[in-house]
Amino acid sequence: MKITVAQLNYHIGNFEGNLDKMLHAVENAKKDNSDIVCFAELATCGYPPRDFLEFPDFISRSNACIESLKQVSHDIAIVVGAPSINPEPEGKDLFNSAYFLYGGEILAIQHKSLLPTYDIFDEYRYFEPCRQYETFEFRGKRIAMTVCEDIWNIGNENPLYDICPMDELIKQGPDFMINVSASPFTYDHANNRLDILKENIDRYQIPIFYVNHVGSQTQIIFDGGSVVMSPNGRVFHELPYFTEEIITYELDEVQKGEQEIIQDKNKMHLIHDAIVLGLHDYFGKLGFSKAILGLSGGIDSAVTAVLAARALGPENVRAVLMPSQFSSQHSIDDAVALAENLGIRYDIVPIQKPYEAFYGLLESLFEGKPFNVAEENIQARSRGLILMALSNKHGNILLNTTNKSEMAVGYGTLYGDLAGGLSVIADVYKTDVFRLARYMNKDGEVIPENTITKPPSAELRHDQKDSDSLPDYDILDEILYEYIENRKGPKAIIKMGHDEALVRRILRLVNINEFKRYQTAPVLRVSNKAFGMGRRMPIVAKYLN
Amino acid sequence: MKITVAQLNYHIGNFEGNLDKMLHAVENAKKDNSDIVCFAELATCGYPPRDFLEFPDFISRSNACIESLKQVSHDIAIVVGAPSINPEPEGKDLFNSAYFLYGGEILAIQHKSLLPTYDIFDEYRYFEPCRQYETFEFRGKRIAMTVCEDIWNIGNENPLYDICPMDELIKQGPDFMINVSASPFTYDHANNRLDILKENIDRYQIPIFYVNHVGSQTQIIFDGGSVVMSPNGRVFHELPYFTEEIITYELDEVQKGEQEIIQDKNKMHLIHDAIVLGLHDYFGKLGFSKAILGLSGGIDSAVTAVLAARALGPENVRAVLMPSQFSSQHSIDDAVALAENLGIRYDIVPIQKPYEAFYGLLESLFEGKPFNVAEENIQARSRGLILMALSNKHGNILLNTTNKSEMAVGYGTLYGDLAGGLSVIADVYKTDVFRLARYMNKDGEVIPENTITKPPSAELRHDQKDSDSLPDYDILDEILYEYIENRKGPKAIIKMGHDEALVRRILRLVNINEFKRYQTAPVLRVSNKAFGMGRRMPIVAKYLN
Repeated sequence: MKITVAQLNYHIGNFEGNLDKMLHAVENAKKDNSDIVCFAELATCGYPPRDFLEFPDFISRSNACIESLKQVSHDIAIVVGAPSINPEPEGKDLFNSAYFLYGGEILAIQHKSLLPTYDIFDEYRYFEPCRQYETFEFRGKRIAMTVCEDIWNIGNENPLYDICPMDELIKQGPDFMINVSASPFTYDHANNRLDILKENIDRYQIPIFYVNHVGSQTQIIFDGGSVVMSPNGRVFHELPYFTEEIITYELDEVQKGEQEIIQDKNKMHLIHDAIVLGLHDYFGKLGFSKAILGLSGGIDSAVTAVLAARALGPENVRAVLMPSQFSSQHSIDDAVALAENLGIRYDIVPIQKPYEAFYGLLESLFEGKPFNVAEENIQARSRGLILMALSNKHGNILLNTTNKSEMAVGYGTLYGDLAGGLSVIADVYKTDVFRLARYMNKDGEVIPENTITKPPSAELRHDQKDSDSLPDYDILDEILYEYIENRKGPKAIIKMGHDEALVRRILRLVNINEFKRYQTAPVLRVSNKAFGMGRRMPIVAKYLN
Repeated sequence: MKITVAQLNYHIGNFEGNLDKMLHAVENAKKDNSDIVCFAELATCGYPPRDFLEFPDFISRSNACIESLKQVSHDIAIVVGAPSINPEPEGKDLFNSAYFLYGGEILAIQHKSLLPTYDIFDEYRYFEPCRQYETFEFRGKRIAMTVCEDIWNIGNENPLYDICPMDELIKQGPDFMINVSASPFTYDHANNRLDILKENIDRYQIPIFYVNHVGSQTQIIFDGGSVVMSPNGRVFHELPYFTEEIITYELDEVQKGEQEIIQDKNKMHLIHDAIVLGLHDYFGKLGFSKAILGLSGGIDSAVTAVLAARALGPENVRAVLMPSQFSSQHSIDDAVALAENLGIRYDIVPIQKPYEAFYGLLESLFEGKPFNVAEENIQARSRGLILMALSNKHGNILLNTTNKSEMAVGYGTLYGDLAGGLSVIADVYKTDVFRLARYMNKDGEVIPENTITKPPSAELRHDQKDSDSLPDYDILDEILYEYIENRKGPKAIIKMGHDEALVRRILRLVNINEFKRYQTAPVLRVSNKAFGMGRRMPIVAKYLN
């Protein structure tokens, strides 16, 4: 028996496009004389469809997609994830299901039991959990189907759940398992995924075909990395990351397990490629091709520009340098050098004139109060306005260049440097932004050395440095990581050896700046706890502040 | 037996403040010789605490609050909602619980079964559902405690759930029920609430003490409206909306049911008062007192200004008129008249100079392309910048004045007229904004008649009218309501008699503008489907667009 894994890049709500991709894969699989072609979880509608699942019209279109796939299932079986309607009057309206289509019919359907409802996941918002498990026979083989999270509670070790679907399915003696997944990228998730698959193999000792999405959906990046596991515990094939793949496997060979192919898991390599894909898909799926961004000469905009040029092509990226009286010459020089290294267009638009125009209008209304964040923000917002004007005139999307450390402590101006349609590196702490820059320069200088080595500055007042108001980034990032990723409280973080006053100040800054993060662009998620839909905090609150 | 209902305004994470309020209410109840004082759901930490619930330190502080309440429970019993730790290794870490404290101990605890996970609610993200139900005796009476949603599946009629906790509790023969709730305001929710309480009475025929939150938490407004129900089906007392109340009831009198007190439910009255509270609490709970907003002479900014003046006092609201070459004289006159009617400070800051400064910088980069949204947005964003500069200089919060119809179709400029810390009327359709204006004028003209009767215009180009690019608001709002509130698809809306091309255009506009709504301020929620945390849509999608 031959089984084809189709690791595809779906587009939410684009039923026609998704169906075309699947039909193309079915054709490919047929050419390989495959018996079964496997797609991912919710492949008809893309993942996550979010509240579109509440629209009956949306579900009808997904059902129509299943009907179309049935029509081509006469010579080959098709495994595909899609929502299905819960026929019971009680409970949620839908199941999150794996369909097995063959001979123009639904030969089997297995609904998902374990519905992730944490971080970016909202599955219990839409889906009813399943409590029935059935394997089925196809061409002499007994098959178990599972949906994503259903294989993540092996031996009941996952504290979130008290059910292990495969413990039920294995009793029926399946020859192999097909898992349809939508398991998003984080920089350490691929390892977790292989670990959990190995635990499944240890326990069930049958081949596993694990089919994931590849591609980015606003904040959420799917890296692919679908996996074929042999029952001897070897990774028969971990599919490449960040690309579509349609590969046919001979079940007997998988059964024997005489090969092991695993992908490189270097953190900077992964983050780099994930963001490039995230950028590429954000533009492509919205129907845009061109980006604009402000280049300050600093490291954040430099790293963002490199990622954009790699994702969209240098001819599709334009930069604007917007010096003020507070900008140093090296900022301009470094930004120009970067743009020239990348081969992207740049223009220089000094902000002195609009700044003076605003200041002239506002001076009397400022009532003689001293220079403060108001004047600083006029500069940042004049820049935002210039970038947005060019974006509106020429139809390109403004990229936001904020990093995660700044975003955490609110070191940025709403509608100014926080403007943009997409936050490219706002899930990368500043210390990792430096690492990413070094990684980008590994085969030759792309980012000017001076951009990497000079002290970070927003240059919004004379001789300003980030270190005037923030601790060193290595300390800041450690505290932020413990608070944001690990949900530690002040006492626990202080106990780790950090200065009490500093910890309290940083945690307070994080909490009082929720209002800023609420209004900033979606962040490409690469960590286990990114700002955005996976981190839901009150704005009006008084905790640690 | 005497029972005190304490309808209080909590503040998320402000354990000390919430505890102080509760201790004060305990004192009051003791003065009334009350036997039991009842607080609301998650009263210790406020509702919704969102992902703060994932922080062990946050839970410890809530537990400390329960300890403090125990200390004052020697002469009076205290019913209070709080998270409690799930001792089982499996399932979510917490329960959403009602504590019954007496004699320095926890006399009883009842966890919530039905965990709302839809719209603004994310309870299954945090809480494990309960499947055990126990009544208990106190001073000769048997008491059933329930938490909010647990009384919303009477006779299993709610399609979301298959369990009815009170059907279990009633078997143990309780004399009355106490329900601790966090049931947010929408303009028709108070009626639903009385209906569901009457259904409970029909079925169980015991007095019910239903204790709700009052007050606003960012987007979510709690109206109070706690209810004491008599077993004869009469509403013994529906407590006032939008105010804190501590009222003691004689159980025997409630049992007899010889009175009925119900609050006025006029829609405009409710929306008006809800938004006033929402504004008041947003400022108060963030520690701000002063607001700023742009006054255009149009109806949206006028209605917003009235609401702000009523919530914060006219002395705390300042307006800025920012005319351009496209502004008509009546816009300035109407805005001035409104400001004078309200007694709020206003300044006039023409935007011609910064506009010219930007245009001078950008003209060559615009490459001779015709006047379009780029130039329009320079105006809107110059206004946003001026307002934010004054906000930053003087420490006031900018109010966003967008209405729900505009917000739906993306008729607004990001970082321009969509700027602001709070969207005051963005859950009110334009047709209701007119109704609200009329309601505000019912006792004399506050909003100039001309502001209400003139054709709406953004005045971003010569002789522009909203009707140039949008259908009449009565038609637009009907289509939007069917799509947004009722989740109808294009076919169903067209079938209602609307023009097909128009419906498709409007639904497309809604969907392609998710990116704008993602970056706008939190919206005070007054309807059943507001933009914000209760409506979660993909940005990168291709559905109906």
